[in-house]
Amino acid sequence: MANKHSISTDPHVFLGLVLALLIARPGFAQDNPGLPKVELPRQPFVINTHKISEVRVVPVVGGLSHPWSLAFLPDGDMLITERTGTLRMVRDGVLLPDPIDGLPDDIMAIRFFGLMEVALHPQFESNRLVYLTYTRALADDVGTVALVRGRLDGTTLRDLEDLLVVDPWNRRAPPDHPRADGEFTASARLTFAPDGKLYMTMGGAFGLERDDGTVTFFGKAPLAQDLNSHVGKLLRLNDDGSAPDDNPFAGLQGHKPEIYSYGHRNQQGLAVHPETGVVYATEHGPQNGDELNAIQPGGNYGWPIVSYGRHYDGQRVASRFWEEGMQEPAVLWVPSIATSGLAIYTGDRFPEWRGNLFVGSMQEGQIPGTGHVQRIELNENGEEVARESLLRDLRQRIRDVRQGPDGLLYLLTEDPNGALLRLEPVSAGP
Amino acid sequence: MANKHSISTDPHVFLGLVLALLIARPGFAQDNPGLPKVELPRQPFVINTHKISEVRVVPVVGGLSHPWSLAFLPDGDMLITERTGTLRMVRDGVLLPDPIDGLPDDIMAIRFFGLMEVALHPQFESNRLVYLTYTRALADDVGTVALVRGRLDGTTLRDLEDLLVVDPWNRRAPPDHPRADGEFTASARLTFAPDGKLYMTMGGAFGLERDDGTVTFFGKAPLAQDLNSHVGKLLRLNDDGSAPDDNPFAGLQGHKPEIYSYGHRNQQGLAVHPETGVVYATEHGPQNGDELNAIQPGGNYGWPIVSYGRHYDGQRVASRFWEEGMQEPAVLWVPSIATSGLAIYTGDRFPEWRGNLFVGSMQEGQIPGTGHVQRIELNENGEEVARESLLRDLRQRIRDVRQGPDGLLYLLTEDPNGALLRLEPVSAGP
Repeated sequence: MANKHSISTDPHVFLGLVLALLIARPGFAQDNPGLPKVELPRQPFVINTHKISEVRVVPVVGGLSHPWSLAFLPDGDMLITERTGTLRMVRDGVLLPDPIDGLPDDIMAIRFFGLMEVALHPQFESNRLVYLTYTRALADDVGTVALVRGRLDGTTLRDLEDLLVVDPWNRRAPPDHPRADGEFTASARLTFAPDGKLYMTMGGAFGLERDDGTVTFFGKAPLAQDLNSHVGKLLRLNDDGSAPDDNPFAGLQGHKPEIYSYGHRNQQGLAVHPETGVVYATEHGPQNGDELNAIQPGGNYGWPIVSYGRHYDGQRVASRFWEEGMQEPAVLWVPSIATSGLAIYTGDRFPEWRGNLFVGSMQEGQIPGTGHVQRIELNENGEEVARESLLRDLRQRIRDVRQGPDGLLYLLTEDPNGALLRLEPVSAGP
Repeated sequence: MANKHSISTDPHVFLGLVLALLIARPGFAQDNPGLPKVELPRQPFVINTHKISEVRVVPVVGGLSHPWSLAFLPDGDMLITERTGTLRMVRDGVLLPDPIDGLPDDIMAIRFFGLMEVALHPQFESNRLVYLTYTRALADDVGTVALVRGRLDGTTLRDLEDLLVVDPWNRRAPPDHPRADGEFTASARLTFAPDGKLYMTMGGAFGLERDDGTVTFFGKAPLAQDLNSHVGKLLRLNDDGSAPDDNPFAGLQGHKPEIYSYGHRNQQGLAVHPETGVVYATEHGPQNGDELNAIQPGGNYGWPIVSYGRHYDGQRVASRFWEEGMQEPAVLWVPSIATSGLAIYTGDRFPEWRGNLFVGSMQEGQIPGTGHVQRIELNENGEEVARESLLRDLRQRIRDVRQGPDGLLYLLTEDPNGALLRLEPVSAGP
């Protein structure tokens, strides 16, 4: 089809979106229905939002292999995990070509698992401690989740030590199973709270065995209610990985002492509200069951006993979606948006967004190419009053959303050629 | 700000969207944050969708004043209601300049109320009967909802007769009340089912009086549970407006015999599945409480006893959102999308969309400028398996979605300069 494009417009307004739409075209193939892929613009572009008229989106670095998380070092450097098993450094806005040395050599990086989180010790400046979570290969066909830490020395991680290794909870699927390679998927986000404790999500509670004997996604959901398993839990740890004495189930026989809350499926976002101290976690439900939970110590968040979600074939997960004594989500998503990273904005660069939650979305309503970012406004009681979606036109899977020490917002796109994006006020120049 | 646009591209691919984005610019004002308004393209344009690579969107007619509903006449003409109180005719793709004569002279057209639905009798070809619903002025400060019918003679409606007049249920608000002029809002959709019965939604069950004495939106929600009121109900009528003897509450003292189901808030979409015979209604909830219900005769759909919704200030409507014996929605929207019209696609022009539901959205997540259309896939059991949003870039409020007798989809945009849009396969020619 003959086609010619020429565009001239103010470069910092709409150009990105217009380009994105035009660029989308060549990637489109008649014999492959679906939304055409959009190439991420390489130059800054401006988007319009409801509360802030113009926000600039700056592609900081590209070429990342399925980036999963990032951490801001005190000297301005950044660490970014690549799910495929490497830890990268961004220095002066440039991605260093060589990954960080000294990573674990038993990272099992297949499909949606591999290297996940990177977090810094609150006293990183003095102790240089870096925490990582990843899917560990225990054998050729057995994996689990491990939390480790090491000391960052230049671009090398030294003195790596295990802090927590989850008991293996799943079996290898037959190779022709539609979810083969998904069996050890379990998101493990980290965040240090103001009390110095390390919070860690541990997912992996997928699927249910049905009454008729059919099995969906290996039927591990009931583990979320098993207090002798780390699967489907939020954990609270001392900085050395041990369980604090004041944890809700500490000292109880048959209970993992690290458990802080339970009844979760797969939590991909985690943040502590800096003013209220509330721990918030976004939970990746099945179809129609994504949640943001305000975590109560010892709370049961219901999965899979109560859930608004549906299996991907349409069948309801639970016959009921509310029960006395089970915690309701603070925010629910129907349809699901495949929630990922979570940031609570507290900076001064976007005053209109202060106190808002920013949630990454990898895909909405089971339609590929629909990832974006959501901005959620809460009132003074922490109740939702508005929800806006941003950056839909990019059609990117957003894996993480973070506030930088500079008060700007940073995003990672989940892609084999993933990118780090920065949101900044237009007044920030250029 | 100096600005120059020049675009040259294949006219039937992306042009509409690109134009829309560029055109958006001039409407944007720094001192009025919010998403800039997008001018609706006047020429056909093509969108990409998940299941069908390219779909053409054809603006059929513009210049409609808040269009609410449309009906397809057997001769190819169309009738379109304008909420501001007029009924228009489209003939050979042209909007006739003069509205239909003979409409009721007591239409109260303020804010979100006025003329609403137009529907044709199943034997319209022989009896020329046209049914209308509207907000009727009973006095300067009292309104209600009326269902009338008349005989269409050319472009004049004759022999208008009242079929159902709802008892007034609300009081006039003080003029400085934030919802003043909203007190008689109550959506009244119509559809004839294959059994020859006329189904009619009757909304108006807004708001709750709170324990602390504050009143939100006049506190009429409890009427949805009152079987002696038409408010917050789905009604089932004979074609003359009388109540069929086999209605679920027929003959019961203190019950309105027209009631078919109850516990609704404000249902703006209504369609009968042509294969299963199930009556589906979309319900405009408050924040986070929009629903699509598969209606059971006599069913209680829970409003306001159980609801996932929140008042617009964030407070939950109900302390629980599930209760034994109350019907659950078939489809829930969290956040709300301000559901409007509903079509169940059964045509042969979009084979990939057969059996899908199409739902209009006027606004998502309380953010103006976010209306669109949703396509919902159900499995063979009527359970949801995917949900796609279409036409977000237009930033239009979509008030109605209908399948035409030609197997194409028709949309109305809710705007003072509203339009009728048609979705057609690209193969249908330019």
